[in-house]
Amino acid sequence: MNKLVVVKIGGNIIDDDEKLAAFLETFARIDGPKILVHGGGKLATRMAEDLGIRQEMVDGRRITDKDTLKIVTMVYAGTINKTIVSGLQAAGCAALGLTGADGNALLAHKRVSAGTDYGFVGDIDRVNTDLLQSLLHLGLTLVVAPITHDGHGQLLNTNADTIAQELATSLGRSYETSLVYSFEKAGVLLDAADDSTVIPRLTPASFRQLRETGAIYAGMLPKLQNAFIALDSGVRQVIIGKAESLSELIAGTAGTTLTHD
Amino acid sequence: MNKLVVVKIGGNIIDDDEKLAAFLETFARIDGPKILVHGGGKLATRMAEDLGIRQEMVDGRRITDKDTLKIVTMVYAGTINKTIVSGLQAAGCAALGLTGADGNALLAHKRVSAGTDYGFVGDIDRVNTDLLQSLLHLGLTLVVAPITHDGHGQLLNTNADTIAQELATSLGRSYETSLVYSFEKAGVLLDAADDSTVIPRLTPASFRQLRETGAIYAGMLPKLQNAFIALDSGVRQVIIGKAESLSELIAGTAGTTLTHD
Repeated sequence: MNKLVVVKIGGNIIDDDEKLAAFLETFARIDGPKILVHGGGKLATRMAEDLGIRQEMVDGRRITDKDTLKIVTMVYAGTINKTIVSGLQAAGCAALGLTGADGNALLAHKRVSAGTDYGFVGDIDRVNTDLLQSLLHLGLTLVVAPITHDGHGQLLNTNADTIAQELATSLGRSYETSLVYSFEKAGVLLDAADDSTVIPRLTPASFRQLRETGAIYAGMLPKLQNAFIALDSGVRQVIIGKAESLSELIAGTAGTTLTHD
Repeated sequence: MNKLVVVKIGGNIIDDDEKLAAFLETFARIDGPKILVHGGGKLATRMAEDLGIRQEMVDGRRITDKDTLKIVTMVYAGTINKTIVSGLQAAGCAALGLTGADGNALLAHKRVSAGTDYGFVGDIDRVNTDLLQSLLHLGLTLVVAPITHDGHGQLLNTNADTIAQELATSLGRSYETSLVYSFEKAGVLLDAADDSTVIPRLTPASFRQLRETGAIYAGMLPKLQNAFIALDSGVRQVIIGKAESLSELIAGTAGTTLTHD
């Protein structure tokens, strides 16, 4: 099976021009088929402020009302996606930007959640793996913005971590897939405040052990649980670490690598 | 040779939700490979106003400074492109949005013009016909935003009419291509104020004649000259008329059709 790398980059890299350029240089050099999923960063929040649009938050989640959807569509699919695509092209990488609406790549439905209306937030129903494979076969590197659609003309805001996971698991049937979550920490840490306490490897068994002893800090647990679900769903390995160390993460010399055994 | 239709829609349709939805329904029903190139409409100007960014104009052309480039990228590649793509998907059309940076579809250089600095405006150097044909072969309908790039990471603002013409002429070597310019008038008119004076057919010879007698109003001449250049460069026919009459334009029962003879 061919290898595929799915990398998710978060806001801290996107908000920093120099770091982003360095990251894209490294990402462009990854051999073979690859997909980059980007989050939004602070740009959408800043844009909402500049336009005088109030951001409503419930339980730490942004409510995507009509105005907020307009902003995230502009900023994620416009500014950020095209900045990354043109940056990758400059680094010699044949990048093509996508939202879930493009080629019906990610079909979703508006979240229905008892009690809370999150607005125009989409939960993914279907990944169009045929299309994505065809595009990858053309030698294209896909750059995916965290916007999906419902197939009836409604765009929806969707979490970038979730998109990366859905892409990796769906394509995991056709590729030996590595899913890389890059974030601000060096990996899964024993001490949240100390980057030198990275756990280099985790399996379901060692994770269970560490969790029982309370050695892994609580903020990390949901991300890890999702990562193990991805492993159970056909992803070969999940790698968690700093975006600045992307090549080391992929080589397995930095960050935390989660595997089945 | 397979047929290809390249349609350019202007701002008046984009600014009107109902008209746009009706247009997309009709466009979705066009058989075979097709490309939709969209302009910007008033949304970018309104967004600049909302953000307090002054738009500089020289000789009726907008100067694309750094802030303006940010806005047109957001609005054209984000809002408008994704609204159209999701609308076409809803109408059963497998649409995929592109800027010139995506897949290096349209490589351009920053315009250098003695006397005037137009800012980040791109003149097209190369159309990536291989990529576009590959995407069309996948059954995708391409929706192109008027943004190009220079291959070195710089996005550029490029006229949508020009993009439509460049796409039609480049793909004219592989497809029997019709180029449709939709705008606010019913076609090329003998009396600019009277939509019933549409000239149904024009050839280079009849155009010369009408121009010599001053029968065609001056505002139409540059568009027509460009259209005849497109015909000379391998486009089979150019059709000019109202977006609301798209199916009649393509059937040849409305608007003005320009052919070689």
